[in-house]
Amino acid sequence: MASEESLRQSLAAKLLEIESLGNNVRALKASRAAKSEIDSAIEALNGLKLERASIERDLQAAMNAAGDGSVNREVFRQTVVNTLERRLFYIPSFKIYRGVAGLYDYGPPGCAVKSNVLAFWRQHFVLEENMLEVDCPCVTPEVVLKASGHVDKFTDLMVKDEKTGTCYRADHLIKDFCNETLQKDLTITSEKAAELKHVLAVLDDLSTEELGAKIKEYGITAPDTKNPLSDPYPFNLMFQTSIGPSGLSPGYMRPETAQGIFVNFKDLYYYNGCKLPFAAAQIGQAFRNEISPRQGLLRVREFTLAEIEHFVDPEDKSHPKFSEGANLEFLMFPREEQMSGHSAKKIPLGEAVARGIVNNQTLGYFIGRVYLFLSRLGIDNDRLRFRQHLANEMAHYAADCWDAEIECSYGWIECVGIADRSAYDLRAHSEKSGVALVAAEKFSEPREVEKLVITPVKKELGLSFKGNQKMVVEALEAMNEKEALEMKANLDSKGEVEFYVCTLGKNVTIKKNMVAISKEKKKEHQRVFTPSVIEPSFGIGRIIYCLFEHSYYMRPSKSGDEQLNVFRFPPLVAPIKCTVFPLVQHEQFEKVAKDISKSLTVFGISHKIDITGTSIGRRYARTDELGVPFAVTVDSTSSVTIRERDSKDQVRVNVEEAASVVKDVTEGVRTWADVWSTFPHHSSASADDED
Amino acid sequence: MASEESLRQSLAAKLLEIESLGNNVRALKASRAAKSEIDSAIEALNGLKLERASIERDLQAAMNAAGDGSVNREVFRQTVVNTLERRLFYIPSFKIYRGVAGLYDYGPPGCAVKSNVLAFWRQHFVLEENMLEVDCPCVTPEVVLKASGHVDKFTDLMVKDEKTGTCYRADHLIKDFCNETLQKDLTITSEKAAELKHVLAVLDDLSTEELGAKIKEYGITAPDTKNPLSDPYPFNLMFQTSIGPSGLSPGYMRPETAQGIFVNFKDLYYYNGCKLPFAAAQIGQAFRNEISPRQGLLRVREFTLAEIEHFVDPEDKSHPKFSEGANLEFLMFPREEQMSGHSAKKIPLGEAVARGIVNNQTLGYFIGRVYLFLSRLGIDNDRLRFRQHLANEMAHYAADCWDAEIECSYGWIECVGIADRSAYDLRAHSEKSGVALVAAEKFSEPREVEKLVITPVKKELGLSFKGNQKMVVEALEAMNEKEALEMKANLDSKGEVEFYVCTLGKNVTIKKNMVAISKEKKKEHQRVFTPSVIEPSFGIGRIIYCLFEHSYYMRPSKSGDEQLNVFRFPPLVAPIKCTVFPLVQHEQFEKVAKDISKSLTVFGISHKIDITGTSIGRRYARTDELGVPFAVTVDSTSSVTIRERDSKDQVRVNVEEAASVVKDVTEGVRTWADVWSTFPHHSSASADDED
Repeated sequence: MASEESLRQSLAAKLLEIESLGNNVRALKASRAAKSEIDSAIEALNGLKLERASIERDLQAAMNAAGDGSVNREVFRQTVVNTLERRLFYIPSFKIYRGVAGLYDYGPPGCAVKSNVLAFWRQHFVLEENMLEVDCPCVTPEVVLKASGHVDKFTDLMVKDEKTGTCYRADHLIKDFCNETLQKDLTITSEKAAELKHVLAVLDDLSTEELGAKIKEYGITAPDTKNPLSDPYPFNLMFQTSIGPSGLSPGYMRPETAQGIFVNFKDLYYYNGCKLPFAAAQIGQAFRNEISPRQGLLRVREFTLAEIEHFVDPEDKSHPKFSEGANLEFLMFPREEQMSGHSAKKIPLGEAVARGIVNNQTLGYFIGRVYLFLSRLGIDNDRLRFRQHLANEMAHYAADCWDAEIECSYGWIECVGIADRSAYDLRAHSEKSGVALVAAEKFSEPREVEKLVITPVKKELGLSFKGNQKMVVEALEAMNEKEALEMKANLDSKGEVEFYVCTLGKNVTIKKNMVAISKEKKKEHQRVFTPSVIEPSFGIGRIIYCLFEHSYYMRPSKSGDEQLNVFRFPPLVAPIKCTVFPLVQHEQFEKVAKDISKSLTVFGISHKIDITGTSIGRRYARTDELGVPFAVTVDSTSSVTIRERDSKDQVRVNVEEAASVVKDVTEGVRTWADVWSTFPHHSSASADDED
Repeated sequence: MASEESLRQSLAAKLLEIESLGNNVRALKASRAAKSEIDSAIEALNGLKLERASIERDLQAAMNAAGDGSVNREVFRQTVVNTLERRLFYIPSFKIYRGVAGLYDYGPPGCAVKSNVLAFWRQHFVLEENMLEVDCPCVTPEVVLKASGHVDKFTDLMVKDEKTGTCYRADHLIKDFCNETLQKDLTITSEKAAELKHVLAVLDDLSTEELGAKIKEYGITAPDTKNPLSDPYPFNLMFQTSIGPSGLSPGYMRPETAQGIFVNFKDLYYYNGCKLPFAAAQIGQAFRNEISPRQGLLRVREFTLAEIEHFVDPEDKSHPKFSEGANLEFLMFPREEQMSGHSAKKIPLGEAVARGIVNNQTLGYFIGRVYLFLSRLGIDNDRLRFRQHLANEMAHYAADCWDAEIECSYGWIECVGIADRSAYDLRAHSEKSGVALVAAEKFSEPREVEKLVITPVKKELGLSFKGNQKMVVEALEAMNEKEALEMKANLDSKGEVEFYVCTLGKNVTIKKNMVAISKEKKKEHQRVFTPSVIEPSFGIGRIIYCLFEHSYYMRPSKSGDEQLNVFRFPPLVAPIKCTVFPLVQHEQFEKVAKDISKSLTVFGISHKIDITGTSIGRRYARTDELGVPFAVTVDSTSSVTIRERDSKDQVRVNVEEAASVVKDVTEGVRTWADVWSTFPHHSSASADDED
């Protein structure tokens, strides 16, 4: 197929031809030319129009292909979302009141998935690493978020419809304009198309002024009214409120949970026996008052974060358990590969750290743990990559930063950020609060350290420099070790030296009697420092949404006349682990079903008992759609069948054993393959997929 | 000891005597009486003053006794709170910025206790009862809370310092005034004391005007400045915010989680196969912008609620599992016992429902389940009672309401409310949203029902009543069955009847041709109704605080020279289930300890390994203070001792078995008594309590 660019050129040429021939036809008509002449010109014109239509179709197809099948992706997404909403995995919040953009409820199965994901997170991170979990309020006083920088910098750029006051995100409007023009306006030149694509690529880097200029240049107006738009200006994304009745204590709903940990550093450090490294963790709600939320569950105004702050000595970022994960191999997308236009590739974690691609062992260790966490949840490893932030993406204080990105129908989505934030946060709160948030390394025996001492002799300096004395003193004291030792050598050999004082803008002459420079030995018992923090931060809702997409598939019903939805959740995350059905409505079968249900409750296995008279095939289809991994069908009073969701394999197990087999295979104590090889198989596939 | 009242009378009499004798002394001095005469009068006066001091002491003692040992309670509370804060069970939030009243963090052990309590809540209620758990946002648009009544009625009365604007809760100021006057002003009459006590008793029932009048009457001023106070006015306790950037969509942080369930009723009912009864549940944060929070963890501005909304047919509130709990017996405090001044007493639950003390089986069933929940957490049954709301405490729509109250150092505290809220909430949202939130009972076969049909003949009515026709028609249509049948009888017999139309304020004459009244038979296939809701609502933070107090005790160290703190948490709620110590620092013991730790991690048992060189007694003391139920001490490479916290009993167990014994006894699969009788006892009590 021809390239998009060459098609745009042919189309432009064709349009010129059509215009010229059209003018020709009009001229023939005006000059009352022979009918046969006019007719043949019109025929030619129609031919050209057909050719144009054909080029337009090709161009459209080329753009769809270039868009990575965005149409197919949207169809897929709609299918998944329909299933999720119909089965109440989630619900637009306050639906009976026509809802609120960017707010969603988790319905029963979604809520169960979420609580399973969080329980596994606690097991995998908090328990496994002995982290200190805390639970802080969402309501946060202004001073805390002033110190963290959120009050001043947590903003998006907004434009307003100048007549109605409706607000839009400036970058969204430009993005929409570019995309729509590229998609729908087939007449634009290939240069113009390239320019719009460039704007899309650099959109995040544009300044307030540049965004404003683009809006003017493209003549973008308010989408709903076509009214003119204001210049872009920053809107703070925190939900503001007021603490207490006076109206004098502004507060915000926290935009992240991390600050609650930082302000408690001192207590937590003490609780940990004044030892580094240690990690604190928090799971909780966070809030962002998005200007105009899009992308369903991926961009919402309230969401659950799970965050870890691992505090470490900046001079030693090794990790004792790093070797345990050094052999892990998964898709990594380092800065250099991105800059040189390559794609993500598999690199063993140990190698990535050894080669300095990942800044340090601790950061590397957490990248490995995040990989294990996501893949055990059921995220497809081929659609999971760790992308390093480019230099311009990172905060100025960050040492290194990697995002776990998961590919879904919206593209590659950041779901976990793993950042080495150095000492920034603790320093900011130390400064604002006046409370030292530091750690100390106690030396086993005092260490002798040499310290440079510069002592200006103020009397002599005063005599020589009078009113300028203070500036000279400050300049002398500000010398670094190298400069001071050089001056000392010169003074010792020559007795005086020329010295540039920048606050005076000139050289002065310093004599030997004006300053004493020496190195003194001191004993120190400890080293006091601000710890670095390595922060893995998990967007739980985004992970869950991607998990939904990765787990979803369709398969034909047995009769082949319909497509059935299945979520292939691992038992770990499945909202319900098992369903229990009597094959037919029958008092004794119901009793057996209830007994098995009771045992499952005692084992703490969430399950559902279904004694409706619906056909067994229908009931299987219903639970496959909820991602229930196992089903127990009671068709006798002595033994039952247990069916596995994806293989649809069935085994026969004694009634007494049924609950504990389900328990073991759910908790991962034994595999389905093991169950399959232990118990007799249910020969007839009769039950399944019956209608 | 004399009664408080008689002591107040003696004190008043004594003060009169002192005043009169004092006047006498001054008169003697003025008249320059003999020195001996003056001296003897002064001596008598001093005698009287001594007597006054003695009466004052007695009065103070009598008041302390009457105050149920409030001084001792405060000392106890301070001891518990000190331990809790020192071990980071909780931390005043944003402490380095001097905190915010009413906001607390859970530190690591508190957070673990909370997450254990919530996990058990899910097991005990959601899983056991197959409830539909949902998870809705905290940010809530105004329309929802307008419908629920919170925007208009969720208020406390506030007064302002007229000069500084500082705000106070009106009832708190009056309460403080009464308590302080009773405690500190020994000169008030017994009548006055009785009046103040009465005010304290009825404080919650006083109107805005009555509270204002009391503040004026008592001359109460602002506590900090002594400035005059404004009249009381209502302050809405919801944190307000704004959703989206326009500033035009007011929202609030939800004051309870229940509304998120009510607005989803329709979807949940459908999800449940359109069957009643069913229950939905939600765990989440709720917010109350308290005017001036007090009482530490009991009255806070942000807290975790766990709420159940059990939807039931108002015509059938029986519960299939009621009989399972009918034999439970615990302290109940019915309305009548409270009114007649009796105290709570044990009543079997089945009897309470049978005798109509508790309104219905479903309400009774949940009371029983709440009792089991709290006592399994470790709440002392003797300090737990279920108190029925008095008629004036209940909302007008509530059918019955019981609070689980737990006694702690603050008195009896409401920790769980269990209310039959009838159809109020669903009706309110149906009305506001226009979406019918109803259930239907499908009849197995259609039922014939007789319905009254009133058909005004508008033409005839128009001729007779002209402009008043509409009012007459409405009045006719509004007749109830009895009125309509009476009218029909009169029209049939007399041909006309006098009829009062209240919107006209007068009688009109209705003739036979003006209205048709008949009873018609109709077939109905279902009965449509608004379900009743029974709501158990748990204040998780309050339950946890009471649990802390009930679990706390002190015991002497072995040397007897200090008191050690212990929390007797059951394993279910203990923040850490087990500690693992090598007896002494020794490479091989450390290896064994780490192996046991690894096995515990695999089992998912939260534990702590302590390889510091601290003495074993000190280490036990540290973990007792965290409520850790079991400790494994490694003193050989083949077997270890396991110690139980409260008995301090120790058994010897093989290294290989140690983790699984701890697992079983932690998960309640076996009891400590069973372990004690199975394994050899550790003979020497040497290790324990060593320093």
